[in-house]
Amino acid sequence: MNEHPPVDGVTHSVVKANGIDIHVARAGEGSGPPVVLLHGWPEFWYVYHKLVPRLSDRFDLIMPDLRGFGATEKPYAGRSDQNTAQVMAEDLLALADQLGLERFGLVSHDVGSLISQVAARLAPAHIDGLFFFNCVHPGIGRRWAEPEHLAEIWYQSFNQKPWAAELVGSSREACRIYFASMLAHWAKDDHAFDADLEIFVDNFMAPGNLQGGFNWYVSAHAARMAVMKGEAPSLPPIDLPTHVLWGRHDPVIKAEWTDNIGESFRDIIVEIAEDAGHFVHYEAPDLAAKRIAAFFGRPT
Amino acid sequence: MNEHPPVDGVTHSVVKANGIDIHVARAGEGSGPPVVLLHGWPEFWYVYHKLVPRLSDRFDLIMPDLRGFGATEKPYAGRSDQNTAQVMAEDLLALADQLGLERFGLVSHDVGSLISQVAARLAPAHIDGLFFFNCVHPGIGRRWAEPEHLAEIWYQSFNQKPWAAELVGSSREACRIYFASMLAHWAKDDHAFDADLEIFVDNFMAPGNLQGGFNWYVSAHAARMAVMKGEAPSLPPIDLPTHVLWGRHDPVIKAEWTDNIGESFRDIIVEIAEDAGHFVHYEAPDLAAKRIAAFFGRPT
Repeated sequence: MNEHPPVDGVTHSVVKANGIDIHVARAGEGSGPPVVLLHGWPEFWYVYHKLVPRLSDRFDLIMPDLRGFGATEKPYAGRSDQNTAQVMAEDLLALADQLGLERFGLVSHDVGSLISQVAARLAPAHIDGLFFFNCVHPGIGRRWAEPEHLAEIWYQSFNQKPWAAELVGSSREACRIYFASMLAHWAKDDHAFDADLEIFVDNFMAPGNLQGGFNWYVSAHAARMAVMKGEAPSLPPIDLPTHVLWGRHDPVIKAEWTDNIGESFRDIIVEIAEDAGHFVHYEAPDLAAKRIAAFFGRPT
Repeated sequence: MNEHPPVDGVTHSVVKANGIDIHVARAGEGSGPPVVLLHGWPEFWYVYHKLVPRLSDRFDLIMPDLRGFGATEKPYAGRSDQNTAQVMAEDLLALADQLGLERFGLVSHDVGSLISQVAARLAPAHIDGLFFFNCVHPGIGRRWAEPEHLAEIWYQSFNQKPWAAELVGSSREACRIYFASMLAHWAKDDHAFDADLEIFVDNFMAPGNLQGGFNWYVSAHAARMAVMKGEAPSLPPIDLPTHVLWGRHDPVIKAEWTDNIGESFRDIIVEIAEDAGHFVHYEAPDLAAKRIAAFFGRPT
């Protein structure tokens, strides 16, 4: 994309890190400690735009597009299984290094939450704390594949198909139908994204962006299979201070799955956002901003 | 569709049965005993066209389009859960009655195989025998939802989405991408359907036909969930003479799942078609025709 959707106070730069050009949207530089915000799928940095007016007076908000997403480089032609959480965590740490961040707070969601967990194990001394919206944790386990949940995870298979980007990108209308449906279904309110829908369609219709996002699913497949089969390696819990704010109405990553998240995080506060679904940061930005501010020591 | 794809010797009629107009393609009337052939998804009567020159000299081949499919009526506006195997078996028996068939042989596949099993329990005295290609039997059970099989059954969820027909039907190109991919993946040879692809696209782009086919998945959902959860009612095996010819390379209904098909059919011959996938009748028509002819007493 040549033009970024305009958000007051947001500047844009491209940072070479871990061998790729990473697009970074940034707001509030100089106003407080750095907080990096990692988006999920089907998202890009812009999904955090409602937090900018609420938090940029007290934090240096750093909102990169993940590898393959938004305006960040897609260092492969077409379908690839190289977009793993491990590689994307290395992207994050290299980006922080390039930006001169000795320590930073980490806010993440969905795909981003998996990247954060890897980064927290690779470089805990650089991370002030982990703030999650709807966190994909290993304790979900076999519940991903329960029969009643299959109607919610079909897209994890569809997105891996070699022809998925061709179908969804066959026209702007097809792209709009696909993402409008996903966003509406995953949010509590079907119309939550109406005002920004065309901006999301613009993003995913940009060259390489459909396959770039789908490559997350191609790359994460082996790890997801291991979790579903109960064969994922058992890791010690993460010690960093952690807060998860989980939308009650998320149909795909369910709030009830917070039950055993404490097995993965030793020092976690679990809170349910009663009035949101999958996208708490977008659906309930007042609550999200208030909790982030308090968690990282600058309460509103 | 106003025009049926031309196949030598095939005539077309519309029969009012079970309250709907059923389109019937027929060949070989008067040449021998009646055999009804039930198609699957994503198919219509035409998927049997290669059997017409091979069998119409000895059988009265009756190839209906199932409710919702092809040129048969879709007695509902839009998405519906009324296309169950029970209803479609009643369609079949009413059609046979309208055609004056006292007894008939039954050939079926995929969706059709589920309809045949219901019909065989409702009216065994009217059916000479059951010949299946790749039969969806209850013994598949929880294996449908094994983690490694999820990449094969995503479409059963996708096809139920209220927006699926809108996306796949957003353009002829989108429709072609979707069905070309499904047909190529399910066949042994990726190019098996190349010669007929545009005819399949014509069929599914006809008004109501995408949703008509998808309604099978909406309607079968509850029964499929029960099978996956091991909660399907246990039924006594079917006594009718049965032959199944199962394509070795079917990725979605796997040949190894013949292992316990004998629990559902007391008198069954299980045979593997080594050179076919999901569509044995289309991919290996010589073998398919030879076995049908022998099974129904008119060997070639």
